[in-house]
Amino acid sequence: MNIKEKFGLKVKALRIEKNFSIEQLANISNVDRNYISDIEKGQRNVSIEIIEKIIHALDVDFATFFNDKSFKR
Amino acid sequence: MNIKEKFGLKVKALRIEKNFSIEQLANISNVDRNYISDIEKGQRNVSIEIIEKIIHALDVDFATFFNDKSFKR
Repeated sequence: MNIKEKFGLKVKALRIEKNFSIEQLANISNVDRNYISDIEKGQRNVSIEIIEKIIHALDVDFATFFNDKSFKR
Repeated sequence: MNIKEKFGLKVKALRIEKNFSIEQLANISNVDRNYISDIEKGQRNVSIEIIEKIIHALDVDFATFFNDKSFKR
């Protein structure tokens, strides 16, 4: 699995944990819903500004988000 | 300080801690040295693929890299 796919799966897992729809996450993060859908599928090479918007919308910080075995080397 | 600047400062701090020149980090990460220079100045909205290349070249993983008070909300 590549880093885009790992990132997407983690976004999706946290979104579902928070009981957010893609639409809700889009509204809170101010990122387009189609873009979020693509991110969750691992199809977007997201920028650090988009990463920040999404993970803050999911109410976590960078360290918490990336503290997951899927991101270990 | 915005997220691009925070990211750049952390890259620079770790690079210096490792005693790497920008040139060396460029060679190890396979990212252009001018691009790395811009990143350290906070001038690039880096993608997750570039982030991965750089932090692995710095011999840390995502959780370690972002586990820094500068990235707290």
